[in-house]
Amino acid sequence: MKQHLVSMNDLTTKDIMDLLKMAESFENGDHWSPNKKTFAANLFFEPSTRTKTSFEVAERKLGLDIVPFESGSSSLLKGESLYDTVKTLESIGIDIAVIRHEQDHFYDELINKVNVKIINGGDGCGQHPTQSLLDLYTINQEFGSFEGLKVAIVGDLRHSRVAKSNRDALTALGAEVIFSGPSEWFIDSDANCNFNIDEVVETVDVLMLLRIQHERHFSLTAISADQYHQKFGLTVEREKRMKKSSIIMHPAPVNRNVEIADSLVECERSRIFKQMENGVYVRMAVLRKLLEQ
Amino acid sequence: MKQHLVSMNDLTTKDIMDLLKMAESFENGDHWSPNKKTFAANLFFEPSTRTKTSFEVAERKLGLDIVPFESGSSSLLKGESLYDTVKTLESIGIDIAVIRHEQDHFYDELINKVNVKIINGGDGCGQHPTQSLLDLYTINQEFGSFEGLKVAIVGDLRHSRVAKSNRDALTALGAEVIFSGPSEWFIDSDANCNFNIDEVVETVDVLMLLRIQHERHFSLTAISADQYHQKFGLTVEREKRMKKSSIIMHPAPVNRNVEIADSLVECERSRIFKQMENGVYVRMAVLRKLLEQ
Amino acid sequence: MKQHLVSMNDLTTKDIMDLLKMAESFENGDHWSPNKKTFAANLFFEPSTRTKTSFEVAERKLGLDIVPFESGSSSLLKGESLYDTVKTLESIGIDIAVIRHEQDHFYDELINKVNVKIINGGDGCGQHPTQSLLDLYTINQEFGSFEGLKVAIVGDLRHSRVAKSNRDALTALGAEVIFSGPSEWFIDSDANCNFNIDEVVETVDVLMLLRIQHERHFSLTAISADQYHQKFGLTVEREKRMKKSSIIMHPAPVNRNVEIADSLVECERSRIFKQMENGVYVRMAVLRKLLEQ
Repeated sequence: MKQHLVSMNDLTTKDIMDLLKMAESFENGDHWSPNKKTFAANLFFEPSTRTKTSFEVAERKLGLDIVPFESGSSSLLKGESLYDTVKTLESIGIDIAVIRHEQDHFYDELINKVNVKIINGGDGCGQHPTQSLLDLYTINQEFGSFEGLKVAIVGDLRHSRVAKSNRDALTALGAEVIFSGPSEWFIDSDANCNFNIDEVVETVDVLMLLRIQHERHFSLTAISADQYHQKFGLTVEREKRMKKSSIIMHPAPVNRNVEIADSLVECERSRIFKQMENGVYVRMAVLRKLLEQ
Repeated sequence: MKQHLVSMNDLTTKDIMDLLKMAESFENGDHWSPNKKTFAANLFFEPSTRTKTSFEVAERKLGLDIVPFESGSSSLLKGESLYDTVKTLESIGIDIAVIRHEQDHFYDELINKVNVKIINGGDGCGQHPTQSLLDLYTINQEFGSFEGLKVAIVGDLRHSRVAKSNRDALTALGAEVIFSGPSEWFIDSDANCNFNIDEVVETVDVLMLLRIQHERHFSLTAISADQYHQKFGLTVEREKRMKKSSIIMHPAPVNRNVEIADSLVECERSRIFKQMENGVYVRMAVLRKLLEQ
Repeated sequence: MKQHLVSMNDLTTKDIMDLLKMAESFENGDHWSPNKKTFAANLFFEPSTRTKTSFEVAERKLGLDIVPFESGSSSLLKGESLYDTVKTLESIGIDIAVIRHEQDHFYDELINKVNVKIINGGDGCGQHPTQSLLDLYTINQEFGSFEGLKVAIVGDLRHSRVAKSNRDALTALGAEVIFSGPSEWFIDSDANCNFNIDEVVETVDVLMLLRIQHERHFSLTAISADQYHQKFGLTVEREKRMKKSSIIMHPAPVNRNVEIADSLVECERSRIFKQMENGVYVRMAVLRKLLEQ
């Protein structure tokens, strides 16, 4: 594994399986801490509850010292570049930084130029590798393997940070992946998009809903939230037609009654909150892997 | 005691006395920590120095791990509900949450629906139970008992988070409580309001001043800050007429020369800063009680 | 040494040398922690990455408990004074506070009035003593002594928090100090200002560049950033004429291609990022000194 994790492309299939196995050991109560005082910083330039808090818990469980960083009162307000900010943190003693930034590939100005280890916590409409890993972990936990599984990824494919990388990883691991959603959000090069949600719900093992990112592009679609729900979302009626052993996933925050009916968010086949729990174990594994190198 | 503390109505008189005794043991240097790694989060959706910092210190003294939560950069900005936010924190591993929120009864959507233990750090114009408890602790510490004490609560009764619950608790514990202040801020149903500050200061054991909450309703009264001070506040002249053993209390932040003359804030009978110190012990007791259940 | 550090005038020459020696021992890996639980708070009312993060790391390395303080959501928004805020923190149990505030001499309302130990993290256009100390540490580390060194301080002398105090301290310690920069930023009383950058670069051991504080006074000078660079800054051409053993310093954040050419920020004789590292050791020393008293 590399010194950083900024994209799922940084990981081989073996790397992924190793991380999932390590995450499992953390879920089972294993402990690990670095053998020297280790400082982490979480630089979130976009709003986040889940990812930031998840990393904060994971870091504390590993015994790291966390130096708070508030983007709204940092020297970036004085015009400092991200490079200079991270180089500063390095000089001050930070060992590992988790960064979420609205700019695609923000990490290009950092990788191989700083010694701080970098985890991408989400870049623009680019990648969000620990979200992908927790998705994979949740599926593997449920089914024991990826071989022969049918996974549908449904919704705003174009702006998702995980649709493409999950498709690539799942395919490499032996699953079949199909896409569904409004055609204006299709990924151009992809042929597997043209699936209607009504066919999809009856055949898949995993129904992975994507968030409509109101805050990024609310007016990109001409249809209302309710129309979206009826046409592309998981309604109460559709859920009833799902296969017995199939599960529902969503990266959250959920727009209730848009991507998924309110009453289904915590239904029996929903793994939405389990995904969040799993995120902590997966991030502990990623942090450990990077710190051990 | 219940699994949460959102209102003084959650506590019996015995619960209150138990908490005050436990707080006293913490003031005397006793230590207690949970026997497993325990995560706390402090969700403050309204400005606070005192209450938030007090909880932060109390939590650290008990050895809790605190996961930072900044309301201004959380997913609530993406439209997530309080329920989904707290449920998220629960999934990620948070054991106990302190919440201040501008909405009355914000906790109704949480209690018995999440497993995170909830402490109300102030809801709208509702309750602020740890403030009430620290007031009671401070009085009990001073006089050894509540029996026969005369307590005046003076000022903005209507918008106070503690006036009514302090009245109820003090009465149940054996004290006599009277109210004083501008008539437009009287609590409708209450007969004990009509006391003039000039009579009050000469007879009470405890003079509990309430903050005029400029930030909530500055134009609700037609009188100026100076007129308020002369008519309803504790002036230098009035303090001189107080009983020898009587004390002054105020939840702070104080508006100097409005509720109380500037020079009296740290006078001999003022317990204003002692209240803040006591808040830490009381909050340690509440946290311990909830975590032990 | 006093109970606080708000100005370099609080320190004798011996105090300074003692602090530098103690900082060196921390750089060499020495450990020290207070023998009781000790709470620190960092109150930054102006943007900061470097100084705040540096104190956070220094405090954690000493094992202090840090209570977060966010100026943007504190009771100062309710009109509370700095005195009442700090007195509150004292009551709640804070032992030492680092404060950055836009008002010159903000600490006058605190010193000898509160028991919290105070470190000035920068006051208006006043002082920034730990920045001065880290500058001195970096010079002493490089040359082993101050005796006979020639130091130029270049740039916005008037608004700098360190120009005057560094001049005074360096002179007292045996160095010769000269100033250079735009005449409208000269310090009135000073005769040693009139040095042209082209003479300066060839003769000095230490070239200490000051930041142009765009955020404070961007329109105070009639010249453009590029004109400043050509006339007063360290260009690639000028750096080539510097003495073999001489070093470049800058408090950062750097305005690249204004005070200094982009390519020189990390050149061999630059100590800019080393200064940041040194800041942690120096702050550990200051914190220890104050807490040991």
